[in-house]
Amino acid sequence: MRFIGEPHHDGSALYVSDQTPALGSRVTLWLRAPLAAGVAAVHVRTVHDGEPRYAAAAVDATRSRAGGYGATDVWWRAEITAVNPVTPYRFLLRTGKGQSWLTAGGLVAHDVTDASDFRLVCHQPPPAWMTDAIVYQIFPDRFDRSRPMSELPELPDWALPRDWDRDPVIPSGPGTSQQFYGGDLDGITGRLDHIQSLGADTVYLTPIFPARSNHRYNAAGFDRIDPLLGGDEALHRLSGALHARGMRLLGDITTNHCGDTHEWFTAAVSDVNAPEREMFYFDPVTGDYESWWGVKTLPKLNWGSDLVRTGMTSVLKKWLGPLDGWRVDVANMTARRGADDRNHEVAALLRAGIGPEAAFIAEHNHDASLDLDRDGWHGTMNYGGFTRPVWAWLRGPELDLDHFLGVPGGVPARDGQATLATLRTFAAAMSWRSFVHSWQLLDSHDSPRIRTVTGSRARHLLALGLQATLPGTPMVFAGSEFGLTGVNGEHSRTPMPWNRPGDQDLETLAGYRALLGLRRSEPALRHGGLRWLHADADCLVFARETFEESLIVCARRAPGEPLSLGVAAAGVHEAEDGDILPGDGPSLRIWRLTR
Amino acid sequence: MRFIGEPHHDGSALYVSDQTPALGSRVTLWLRAPLAAGVAAVHVRTVHDGEPRYAAAAVDATRSRAGGYGATDVWWRAEITAVNPVTPYRFLLRTGKGQSWLTAGGLVAHDVTDASDFRLVCHQPPPAWMTDAIVYQIFPDRFDRSRPMSELPELPDWALPRDWDRDPVIPSGPGTSQQFYGGDLDGITGRLDHIQSLGADTVYLTPIFPARSNHRYNAAGFDRIDPLLGGDEALHRLSGALHARGMRLLGDITTNHCGDTHEWFTAAVSDVNAPEREMFYFDPVTGDYESWWGVKTLPKLNWGSDLVRTGMTSVLKKWLGPLDGWRVDVANMTARRGADDRNHEVAALLRAGIGPEAAFIAEHNHDASLDLDRDGWHGTMNYGGFTRPVWAWLRGPELDLDHFLGVPGGVPARDGQATLATLRTFAAAMSWRSFVHSWQLLDSHDSPRIRTVTGSRARHLLALGLQATLPGTPMVFAGSEFGLTGVNGEHSRTPMPWNRPGDQDLETLAGYRALLGLRRSEPALRHGGLRWLHADADCLVFARETFEESLIVCARRAPGEPLSLGVAAAGVHEAEDGDILPGDGPSLRIWRLTR
Repeated sequence: MRFIGEPHHDGSALYVSDQTPALGSRVTLWLRAPLAAGVAAVHVRTVHDGEPRYAAAAVDATRSRAGGYGATDVWWRAEITAVNPVTPYRFLLRTGKGQSWLTAGGLVAHDVTDASDFRLVCHQPPPAWMTDAIVYQIFPDRFDRSRPMSELPELPDWALPRDWDRDPVIPSGPGTSQQFYGGDLDGITGRLDHIQSLGADTVYLTPIFPARSNHRYNAAGFDRIDPLLGGDEALHRLSGALHARGMRLLGDITTNHCGDTHEWFTAAVSDVNAPEREMFYFDPVTGDYESWWGVKTLPKLNWGSDLVRTGMTSVLKKWLGPLDGWRVDVANMTARRGADDRNHEVAALLRAGIGPEAAFIAEHNHDASLDLDRDGWHGTMNYGGFTRPVWAWLRGPELDLDHFLGVPGGVPARDGQATLATLRTFAAAMSWRSFVHSWQLLDSHDSPRIRTVTGSRARHLLALGLQATLPGTPMVFAGSEFGLTGVNGEHSRTPMPWNRPGDQDLETLAGYRALLGLRRSEPALRHGGLRWLHADADCLVFARETFEESLIVCARRAPGEPLSLGVAAAGVHEAEDGDILPGDGPSLRIWRLTR
Repeated sequence: MRFIGEPHHDGSALYVSDQTPALGSRVTLWLRAPLAAGVAAVHVRTVHDGEPRYAAAAVDATRSRAGGYGATDVWWRAEITAVNPVTPYRFLLRTGKGQSWLTAGGLVAHDVTDASDFRLVCHQPPPAWMTDAIVYQIFPDRFDRSRPMSELPELPDWALPRDWDRDPVIPSGPGTSQQFYGGDLDGITGRLDHIQSLGADTVYLTPIFPARSNHRYNAAGFDRIDPLLGGDEALHRLSGALHARGMRLLGDITTNHCGDTHEWFTAAVSDVNAPEREMFYFDPVTGDYESWWGVKTLPKLNWGSDLVRTGMTSVLKKWLGPLDGWRVDVANMTARRGADDRNHEVAALLRAGIGPEAAFIAEHNHDASLDLDRDGWHGTMNYGGFTRPVWAWLRGPELDLDHFLGVPGGVPARDGQATLATLRTFAAAMSWRSFVHSWQLLDSHDSPRIRTVTGSRARHLLALGLQATLPGTPMVFAGSEFGLTGVNGEHSRTPMPWNRPGDQDLETLAGYRALLGLRRSEPALRHGGLRWLHADADCLVFARETFEESLIVCARRAPGEPLSLGVAAAGVHEAEDGDILPGDGPSLRIWRLTR
């Protein structure tokens, strides 16, 4: 599949004049059509109060004469109005071969629904700092500790103390949630040089409220930081140190449930007449209550309750200051139960509560698109649209997992064309804004490690290369930069190998610093458009482009035929140049187009 | 493209045990997999309160032994729960070639969003009678008149009287909305034998309220029937005669706007303090008001107003009795303006108002999917998912229209594969229930006539063959059964040629009676599943199937290679049988599988 001759548009600033339109804004759109595509006429279709409207595009002579691909491309220009909070649009092209549509899903010669239309979004944009973010995820019990276990205030009754470097993580069964390594917030504060050296500028912590487990998703309260982690003061120290470096800190909040030792729930369960009773779903006959996946330590919150609405809004606001925003646990299930679906309303309520400068990212493991582009979540953890297709393309031949985040049948083996189809399908289902603010992750505390999935350093670094160069916010799970392994989420929560040099793959570490560093230094990788150029079974090629520059990324999982670009380019890392991308692999090459 | 070896599921009763599940219902699903597909394992994925859940399917030995394709097919069976008002589901298949998904969009070997998932819908179902309906659309001014123009009570000042058989319709420009032929409701009552002879059982009338135009979409009031049409009494006579035959009658209501001579608007416009002022969108400064596409005779209703909500609800209820439901004009724009979108809420409000026995069909000319499968509209006028792809496949070589319902560039010429892609894409975006209750139309009072589009009787009857045999409710625009022509909506509003034998193509008429009659006599065409078997540029083949029978439909627009079915079948119309579909064309063949 070669796309290099196809007309192109995406939501980036190269093609859309206003990245933060307001209702009523006039916005200029550009469409870029290689001469060879033979485009004779272009209309843009918007949906305006539910009705399609068409506006003719005209050739933009100024842009058509500009550099880069300019000599071989015609740029079309049209003006549209942002009539609705989300205004869908697409292009109707006429060529010698007939009519076709260009939507965010690509060029099609049949009719498609609006589901893949481009979208102009007038909702309040995410804070500007999020656009450049590289996120580093930390599971606090396993990152580092500032004091030996013996100096902890007191070990809680549930905890099974483990030796940081000698005791392997229990991957499943008894003890999984109780194994306790004693990492704390001051431990993180002491490692900011490491984090920053990777290019990351945003630290995301899984929950830090007191709880009866090492993961702390069963919060016993939202009003103080767990003393085992150093308490409120340690959070302020960590946050202060990050902010002093111009870095950010995100928390993790459970809006779907709380722990069964939370005071809201203990009050509710102990007295059927307690005001807190309405905060949960109690069966009026049996007294049983709804919980996350039937796990009774995680009672589900009832967002029909004003106490939940005001209580959670106040929790989310209270911690802003030390925190710069939230990752929202189980956002997909939040405020959803049977006929009662308040998810969009709750996301908007909480977003309004945290204000315009705080990040708000929804956990979602399959398809978040219908929950985005509203006035709630800024983006999603893009397991479905990034993690899974990258795993399927780069999985090792020996990989033997029985599911992918609950999807039975393990990790399928897919070729480059199928991988691209998944990447495009998911990206097209949301606005460019939601796409670039979503987190592209290779692994997390809930998944196997990317090193285990790929089975080799070369494929691991290729996966990282995609993460560092595709649109979307890279989220790195602490430890993967050392090439740590893990067969499931629990097993991946490895205590960091600070004192185990043998567990540190320094070539992998160097790869993280180089690739994420490149993202940090190249505006096109953070803000550029995305144009797919080629896909075959073993090779994916795309361009990231601003008006100033074009970077070409060629990811090969195996050797193949050299590819002609048709235009001159130069290697960004290596002293290569010409118009032929070499065929050796596995390899990741990044070239800059000569203009 | 051959699909005959592909696993299949759809929402029909052959594959889903409960067509009207309630919240909490357990529902059995079947998936049919030809042995050759090599399916080794099947899971069904549902989305349950926002979270995917997987259940393993097992081989259903009883079904796998049953007749028809049974000998070569394996039937898999799984149970799911209707957890939410709409519960999306899909199948995960494992074969020797890896993992694939079966969604309503077909079989794919990459990941897709939930947009094409099958859907189990717990909302109140449409009335049972709608499932069997064949709808006949009448534009009252042009169907027949019960009395000569001279006997009309009085001709309104706006009307330009025209001679029924001698004056051609003015297709555009001055006089278009004023040309007046004087058709009336008693004229329709006198022609019920004709309508019933076509197989139609439901008459849909474009507006019949008084108005200052021949189309009456600018209603001057909703509380009586236009005396020019015979008034309330004529409506009761027509309705009584239809009901006595077991037939139904539908009205046409403008929920988006009313006429500028409507008392709501005249009150609102004459006094800024009138209570009716809130029913419209007046600019507080200029006094200007919002109207449909800027047409000032059609002021847009503001559904934020309680007067609009109660007023329109009471109008829709008032006429039930003589009417059996409503087609809703401009449903797509109703209650949508800028940031104010109450469309879903208004559709639900009105649906609740009209109760469970009245039909409620939304006009929509591009993609209604996100407005369906709620508790509002039962279905849509499927211009985007049926009319346009059929036109694009069967358009005549000489056709010269400048747009398709406003889409610039005329009617594209598309091959069978692209046509099928459009048909599947749109059908997959809604539930089976919404799909089968949507109106499949070849033309209407708003479009060119199908005869003009196809340019020949043979292709016209082929289009009709698709309409008569595919799922969805056929809607026939009065006059097309005689092969009338028209280049746009106005031009297509031809006075019926009762007295012009030269304008009656009796072969076309015979085709309507035969094909719609076949639909009426064959349960599989009304209630059966839809399985695509083959598509090439000039030929589309599909099966309509119940547990009792399988009909195979082969539509060819041009001669081609004979096709092997691989199983024995017999011609329904002609004395043909065997397992080879002949290659002559244009042709429509319907065969019944031998079991």
